[in-house]
Amino acid sequence: MNRNDVTEKIIATKVAKGIKWADVAKRVGQSKEWTTALCLGQMTATAEQAQVLAEIFDLTDEEKRWLQVVPYKGSLPTAVPTDPLIYRWYEIVNVYGTTIKELIHEEFGDGIMSAIDFSLDITREPDPKGDRVRVVMSGKFLPYKQY
Amino acid sequence: MNRNDVTEKIIATKVAKGIKWADVAKRVGQSKEWTTALCLGQMTATAEQAQVLAEIFDLTDEEKRWLQVVPYKGSLPTAVPTDPLIYRWYEIVNVYGTTIKELIHEEFGDGIMSAIDFSLDITREPDPKGDRVRVVMSGKFLPYKQY
Amino acid sequence: MNRNDVTEKIIATKVAKGIKWADVAKRVGQSKEWTTALCLGQMTATAEQAQVLAEIFDLTDEEKRWLQVVPYKGSLPTAVPTDPLIYRWYEIVNVYGTTIKELIHEEFGDGIMSAIDFSLDITREPDPKGDRVRVVMSGKFLPYKQY
Amino acid sequence: MNRNDVTEKIIATKVAKGIKWADVAKRVGQSKEWTTALCLGQMTATAEQAQVLAEIFDLTDEEKRWLQVVPYKGSLPTAVPTDPLIYRWYEIVNVYGTTIKELIHEEFGDGIMSAIDFSLDITREPDPKGDRVRVVMSGKFLPYKQY
Amino acid sequence: MNRNDVTEKIIATKVAKGIKWADVAKRVGQSKEWTTALCLGQMTATAEQAQVLAEIFDLTDEEKRWLQVVPYKGSLPTAVPTDPLIYRWYEIVNVYGTTIKELIHEEFGDGIMSAIDFSLDITREPDPKGDRVRVVMSGKFLPYKQY
Amino acid sequence: MNRNDVTEKIIATKVAKGIKWADVAKRVGQSKEWTTALCLGQMTATAEQAQVLAEIFDLTDEEKRWLQVVPYKGSLPTAVPTDPLIYRWYEIVNVYGTTIKELIHEEFGDGIMSAIDFSLDITREPDPKGDRVRVVMSGKFLPYKQY
Amino acid sequence: MNRNDVTEKIIATKVAKGIKWADVAKRVGQSKEWTTALCLGQMTATAEQAQVLAEIFDLTDEEKRWLQVVPYKGSLPTAVPTDPLIYRWYEIVNVYGTTIKELIHEEFGDGIMSAIDFSLDITREPDPKGDRVRVVMSGKFLPYKQY
Amino acid sequence: MNRNDVTEKIIATKVAKGIKWADVAKRVGQSKEWTTALCLGQMTATAEQAQVLAEIFDLTDEEKRWLQVVPYKGSLPTAVPTDPLIYRWYEIVNVYGTTIKELIHEEFGDGIMSAIDFSLDITREPDPKGDRVRVVMSGKFLPYKQY
Amino acid sequence: MNRNDVTEKIIATKVAKGIKWADVAKRVGQSKEWTTALCLGQMTATAEQAQVLAEIFDLTDEEKRWLQVVPYKGSLPTAVPTDPLIYRWYEIVNVYGTTIKELIHEEFGDGIMSAIDFSLDITREPDPKGDRVRVVMSGKFLPYKQY
Amino acid sequence: MNRNDVTEKIIATKVAKGIKWADVAKRVGQSKEWTTALCLGQMTATAEQAQVLAEIFDLTDEEKRWLQVVPYKGSLPTAVPTDPLIYRWYEIVNVYGTTIKELIHEEFGDGIMSAIDFSLDITREPDPKGDRVRVVMSGKFLPYKQY
Repeated sequence: MNRNDVTEKIIATKVAKGIKWADVAKRVGQSKEWTTALCLGQMTATAEQAQVLAEIFDLTDEEKRWLQVVPYKGSLPTAVPTDPLIYRWYEIVNVYGTTIKELIHEEFGDGIMSAIDFSLDITREPDPKGDRVRVVMSGKFLPYKQY
Repeated sequence: MNRNDVTEKIIATKVAKGIKWADVAKRVGQSKEWTTALCLGQMTATAEQAQVLAEIFDLTDEEKRWLQVVPYKGSLPTAVPTDPLIYRWYEIVNVYGTTIKELIHEEFGDGIMSAIDFSLDITREPDPKGDRVRVVMSGKFLPYKQY
Repeated sequence: MNRNDVTEKIIATKVAKGIKWADVAKRVGQSKEWTTALCLGQMTATAEQAQVLAEIFDLTDEEKRWLQVVPYKGSLPTAVPTDPLIYRWYEIVNVYGTTIKELIHEEFGDGIMSAIDFSLDITREPDPKGDRVRVVMSGKFLPYKQY
Repeated sequence: MNRNDVTEKIIATKVAKGIKWADVAKRVGQSKEWTTALCLGQMTATAEQAQVLAEIFDLTDEEKRWLQVVPYKGSLPTAVPTDPLIYRWYEIVNVYGTTIKELIHEEFGDGIMSAIDFSLDITREPDPKGDRVRVVMSGKFLPYKQY
Repeated sequence: MNRNDVTEKIIATKVAKGIKWADVAKRVGQSKEWTTALCLGQMTATAEQAQVLAEIFDLTDEEKRWLQVVPYKGSLPTAVPTDPLIYRWYEIVNVYGTTIKELIHEEFGDGIMSAIDFSLDITREPDPKGDRVRVVMSGKFLPYKQY
Repeated sequence: MNRNDVTEKIIATKVAKGIKWADVAKRVGQSKEWTTALCLGQMTATAEQAQVLAEIFDLTDEEKRWLQVVPYKGSLPTAVPTDPLIYRWYEIVNVYGTTIKELIHEEFGDGIMSAIDFSLDITREPDPKGDRVRVVMSGKFLPYKQY
Repeated sequence: MNRNDVTEKIIATKVAKGIKWADVAKRVGQSKEWTTALCLGQMTATAEQAQVLAEIFDLTDEEKRWLQVVPYKGSLPTAVPTDPLIYRWYEIVNVYGTTIKELIHEEFGDGIMSAIDFSLDITREPDPKGDRVRVVMSGKFLPYKQY
Repeated sequence: MNRNDVTEKIIATKVAKGIKWADVAKRVGQSKEWTTALCLGQMTATAEQAQVLAEIFDLTDEEKRWLQVVPYKGSLPTAVPTDPLIYRWYEIVNVYGTTIKELIHEEFGDGIMSAIDFSLDITREPDPKGDRVRVVMSGKFLPYKQY
Repeated sequence: MNRNDVTEKIIATKVAKGIKWADVAKRVGQSKEWTTALCLGQMTATAEQAQVLAEIFDLTDEEKRWLQVVPYKGSLPTAVPTDPLIYRWYEIVNVYGTTIKELIHEEFGDGIMSAIDFSLDITREPDPKGDRVRVVMSGKFLPYKQY
Repeated sequence: MNRNDVTEKIIATKVAKGIKWADVAKRVGQSKEWTTALCLGQMTATAEQAQVLAEIFDLTDEEKRWLQVVPYKGSLPTAVPTDPLIYRWYEIVNVYGTTIKELIHEEFGDGIMSAIDFSLDITREPDPKGDRVRVVMSGKFLPYKQY
């Protein structure tokens, strides 16, 4: 058994039971973004969170323990994603990558926006011409220092 | 001459003259994100915008015309970007890709968040533990339809 | 169990029973193109459609539920397809890609032809020198906007 | 000098003079799709066509000769195209590839749709919800034969 | 079950029973080249041919049906083949590729040699300095046409 | 200067002067296949052959010397060729690769068909349904030996 | 002109003048590791540092400005480095990658060792059996947080 | 059974029993770095070490023997690692690769730092601004010699 | 069952029984290099050799037959090998590849060193500064001929 | 100017003057293998050796200095070499890679054959059935040690 087996069981159980990620998140007590990433094998649970997930998804003790082990991260089967929804995000990085780089450096100097000290928030933005997906990302700026 | 030559001239002139993207954007009259993407060869200018950029960056008439031609988009030299700042964005897509997909589908059903009917806003988020980069993205949800 | 298992079962049952996609589409009530893409794991069914497919392909309740979950799309095992029929389409994109880009931009300006708000129709075109495959594609034009 | 130099000159001259592909096609006497592909280095001109293009784009005699030489075809710089417009076509092949294969085989049996004995037609399809790109492709069906 | 399972069973049965491809071809009534390609999962059988193969390789009814379904073609596990015999053919394409292109175009003009309306014949060519493999390929020339 | 420069000069001169490969071969005194491969930078000339080519293509003494140096072989810009004519050959290797392997081993045992002690002959095969390209390849069989 | 041109000029001048990185670092006033990375186009100089480098390497005013612009980072021409010295480091990541991951997580929990808030120190470690390269790396631990 | 099966069993047992690598290392009598690499399938055990691991992880005699066989090394599933912690090490090689090369050559001349006669030590470095990961690597310098 | 299954059984049995390749080779009556390559799935056995291996590794009749079938060759899971020992050989090809080419051509003219009519011999070379691996390779020179 | 420019000048001068590597090696006073690798940009010269090469190849003082700088090694343009002579060596690594690994480990235990403390010798081996290329490689065995 490995973490991937637990992820697959969670997904299959979610489909079989008709569970919603938003509801899982409420019971776990964290955002829907972090909680979904946890369930999809990208984050690490505390013992309490693992217990909550075990109840929701009928996990065994061994499966609970795997949720508390740091996983090998990366959720995509190919370097360039084929799924159209995920590809659009890859395309944004590709088309706007150098723009993002220029503007962060202009504001902050040399360094990066952290993908670790980071949060993500996805919501529906009502719009008469068609509702929109609104995404807010917040990542700590980490400067390159001289030494 | 091609669009890439114009992009390189703009960047070199920006360095030589010490111009800021935010100031270019003000004179162009659009956001700093769209304007920078335009200057970096990813967007298409109107005749008026091309004229403004020509004045800022000392462009010739032919260079101005290239700014009004739709470019072959894509700003990165490799499929997986090596630059640490841009890589962090690729990493977000890789680690959170399936999470983003699950949550958008849970809210909207099958479809995508458009990368065309799309806007991007990057700002500084003051924080006593270290300022953060705040990014707001807004993309129209486009549903897959049955036919 | 995952969506791929359902796809494989559908294909195997189709072979075993000698079912035709065109007949499946009639019972589902949508085009043969969309219905086949659904059966091959690329589209999402409504509850009613899943019920129809369950009857045709002897699917279980769990399999029916998987048909109603948005799949991770992409139907090809390699980035450049090896199958000669599918490769010809890749070749058309490769040989005519820049031509298509030029002509759509000349007519519509900067933007794309949507692959989401999109339909596909494949028919036989009788021809004394050998019948032809006629394909009609219709995708909404989505303009890049300035912001 | 090679064909690629001629292609670059044609594109640069087109930008400098503000020429439209549709007008070039009229003077060449072929469809705008074939003519554009010719100008972009994918097709081969007759002596008469080369002469017409030479007049439009101020080509030298040597450049005219290159237009009459069969080119090494393929218009994209990477196997998976980064440009969003062209990528959408790649995505259609990826998402619908197996569907297209199934339906052509259901209608015609084993074989392919030719990409050589082939024509392409791109037009604007007016639509109150937003105009659409309509593409008609016609390729001869070529059956695999037993031997 | 899929076509690949049938291919593997045919190969394993061939090894277990010591069958020769040439003998299979005689019973099928086609060339050894086409018949072997059929058995290796690249071609499509008629009902009669499937029946013959079923008798030779002890196939079930379901396996027979799979032989009559058009397969996803491509017989190599990597884009550049590692097997020395097959690599030599890849090398011929690599070293002589542009030569073949030049000579076919010099004789026929722009177009291709079909790999569909195509036959292959492999025989032993006795030679006192060491016997040779003689390969005759015949493919219909398909011209690019203007439209 | 390197061999590639000589190849490009030969091709450009051929286009400028309207020379045919078959005529070059006659003057060189070898087959059109080997001679074209030599001119395209894949084979090595004798001093006499280099002299003949120098006369045909107006080569300098240094260029003549490069023709007599063994070149770094490989004529294609990508591992999977994009040009449709050359791709068809790659497709033949891909679709028929395991078939070719099986049949050569059935006839000769373990070993390869040499791509070095090898000849290639391309001719027009008249056919009322459309002329065909006939290719005859002859390569020495080289057995793997035990040691 | 771009940053790469400045890097090439620095390297060529270093070779021509026989300068040592350690001496450059002393004049710049930072470690030899950071200073070399700066000279090789991976870090960003202050105005004072750029002035020092300009004196050492005879840089123009424009070249000095490029040193103060944040570069597109990544110093290797291929994803897997071919140079034996650099490959050994890649090999360490490949062979010890999962080990490093396990031990950092065992000590710190889920998170990463920063490559931005990071320093590197390379020294000679005398050893009677052959001197050794001693490398000390120090990177801030950045924990994944729940949100 | 192969070495990979043993690695997976060790990891699963470690998770199930809540074992720490540091404790395994103490019982094995080697560093935690080497011992973890051994357990993760990268190093080779003596009979005594295999016996110790068999007791800790409930291994069978056959599994013990596999630990004493030299493994096929390489612990990462992709050439560019997707896991953020391991990627940071890849990034260090990418950003600092040429710097490391320059400085080792400046100190030692042409040669490499061995990844075989090599040791690795990972510790926590307390820091009021956030603890750091300190890594000490020591590799024998191996000079290229002339011959 | 396929050849790979036989290879895995041979390796597992070797580990379980503590067999040495050199002893296998003695019983087979060929060199240790060829015999090991045979056992690892790269060469083809005679009936007698298969019988010897069957006795050593407890093979079934079907497994024996697989040893006599020509395998699909290539023993590495990735194009660039990750295992350090095998990588060093890849590195030799990479660093010395053009040198080897120049020297063989200088001595023999255009052609190759055969990898089929080839033998390999690996021995220990005692050396007071540390024993060495001595490898002798002998491959027939095969000249390119004109035709 | 960089090392690659020097390599290209050496090769071009060698062709123009008809120099042999064996003669260069004699004047340099090292083996033809090491000397050729030096001339092809893979090794580092002493001042005296650089002076000898400068005389042979008419090098400038700056070019001489580049020969004394450690180069970025790797002589092949692609990861899998296309040149048939060099490919045969890649094929040997591919077909015999696991065999070589097994036999070196059987003789020496876990470790590698060094590609740094290494020598290469290529000679003609007369043979009545056709002369052979004989290659002797000698690399120090470097054991993995426990720590």
